[in-house]
Amino acid sequence: MRAPLLPCYLFPYILVSMSTFPSLAIVGLGLMGGSLALALKEKNRAQKIIGITRKRATLDAALQRGAIDAASDELNAARDADIIVLAAPVRTILTHIHNLKEIARDGALILDMGSTKRAIVNAMNQLPERLRAVGGHPMCGKESAGFDAADASLYQDKIFVLTPTERTNECALNTSHALAETIGSRVIEMDAARHDEIVAAVSHLPYILASNLVATVDDFADGDEMVWQIASSGYRDTSRLAASDVTMMLDILLTNSENVANMMRAYSRRFGELADLIYDEDEKTLREMLERAARVRREIKI
Amino acid sequence: MRAPLLPCYLFPYILVSMSTFPSLAIVGLGLMGGSLALALKEKNRAQKIIGITRKRATLDAALQRGAIDAASDELNAARDADIIVLAAPVRTILTHIHNLKEIARDGALILDMGSTKRAIVNAMNQLPERLRAVGGHPMCGKESAGFDAADASLYQDKIFVLTPTERTNECALNTSHALAETIGSRVIEMDAARHDEIVAAVSHLPYILASNLVATVDDFADGDEMVWQIASSGYRDTSRLAASDVTMMLDILLTNSENVANMMRAYSRRFGELADLIYDEDEKTLREMLERAARVRREIKI
Repeated sequence: MRAPLLPCYLFPYILVSMSTFPSLAIVGLGLMGGSLALALKEKNRAQKIIGITRKRATLDAALQRGAIDAASDELNAARDADIIVLAAPVRTILTHIHNLKEIARDGALILDMGSTKRAIVNAMNQLPERLRAVGGHPMCGKESAGFDAADASLYQDKIFVLTPTERTNECALNTSHALAETIGSRVIEMDAARHDEIVAAVSHLPYILASNLVATVDDFADGDEMVWQIASSGYRDTSRLAASDVTMMLDILLTNSENVANMMRAYSRRFGELADLIYDEDEKTLREMLERAARVRREIKI
Repeated sequence: MRAPLLPCYLFPYILVSMSTFPSLAIVGLGLMGGSLALALKEKNRAQKIIGITRKRATLDAALQRGAIDAASDELNAARDADIIVLAAPVRTILTHIHNLKEIARDGALILDMGSTKRAIVNAMNQLPERLRAVGGHPMCGKESAGFDAADASLYQDKIFVLTPTERTNECALNTSHALAETIGSRVIEMDAARHDEIVAAVSHLPYILASNLVATVDDFADGDEMVWQIASSGYRDTSRLAASDVTMMLDILLTNSENVANMMRAYSRRFGELADLIYDEDEKTLREMLERAARVRREIKI
């Protein structure tokens, strides 16, 4: 399924992983893009970083913090870049990929940091053969967004998923590996479809659970402040994701709606069983179900 | 509904809050009872603490850490205590209350730290008139249990709910307030029925959500280790409560099953609506629902 091997614009892995990255454009300077720029600058591993975002204030802040060398509010500024990293909500990334068909230079590598991968890999497969593209997703979300939250250590010891496309050749994959490892991540390669199933389970479902918990408790509280005073660390942690950036989450849910709906159905079925067991006070079966979850949860190292 | 004012065995509030507590028995030396003993010892505010639990190893550990002055594996050892604190799973507390009818000395104050309050307050209402009793619930759970996890600072800046009973007079209430404040807590008084409704929403529902999340993802993963590698901080926090002590949680759920079932029904209704909106890709309504939860969650200070 990989693209035919064109002459590799970049170096082979052994050189890439030891050398300085050439000119790099980062499109989107929020938590993810901003942290990437800061991490590369801290390691002094990029010849030149061009920051691209529509918000002038963000560009100014990024220049001032030394995260980028040049700033632009137009995608056109990615024209001369050897590597173009797209760090935006998924549907914005899809638009960027489309627009880069004309803009990107021959042999340029396009790598994204979007939270779902099937739609993006499909769009990357439509790129002209003169371009390279790899899907990427670093597993290090935070509920605080924006460049202000950016942090050079965000990617340290985190998983960075890479999903090959029809525009991925060995050189593009090597370069992507090297970039992820440079900022401290550990790479896992997988198919875009499998990635989207997995994140529906371990990331999108938890977000929906948290959001729905907050709304349900808010309905119940109905203005009674006492309810929030009684809420303690259990509620705090279980509901944390509800504060995530909604525009980003909508892009995620709507580009992964089938997997998310499937996971929600599976969740609902088990939830209904639990409710019946509690209502019927079936202590034995209830204990078995809760013990199983407790055992699995205690074994997980995150 | 309060008990007729019998001669107050203990001091009035102003004296109680400034003075040393008399002889105190703590029944159950897990996270809650153990932390209470350590906190009182650290402040040097108890004349004598008798630790009571069936596990010899826990008694030895508590004696060694200086948490208690005397140790016993029999409830009978609470015979001479002025204050008896019950720190055990709810249904064990119910048994202790029943047994203390014969054991406790005239005028003794029985205070509990159980996680649901209606069943306990009902049991306290059946105590002989010669005894005092107040329901209590400090809002500071952890998923790690046992004396090893005990910590003198556990109650610091945490809410301590007190629920009056028919065996509560002013003196008993004052003493309970003073005890909670001594260990650093802030007291909220409320009706047992309201307490149980609120904790069903902010504590028991989050536990069920977490436990069911772990089981659903474990079903989905079906042995594929990749799934757990992709799981990140969002999954970690949303699922944390699933590791709670199951025996304690079963006592909680089964002594509050009606409220928990009601909250689960309310949650399910909204969850179904969300699933439909995602499946139908109704972005506008979905955005409104998610924005509301994000706004509410960001406002909460926990």
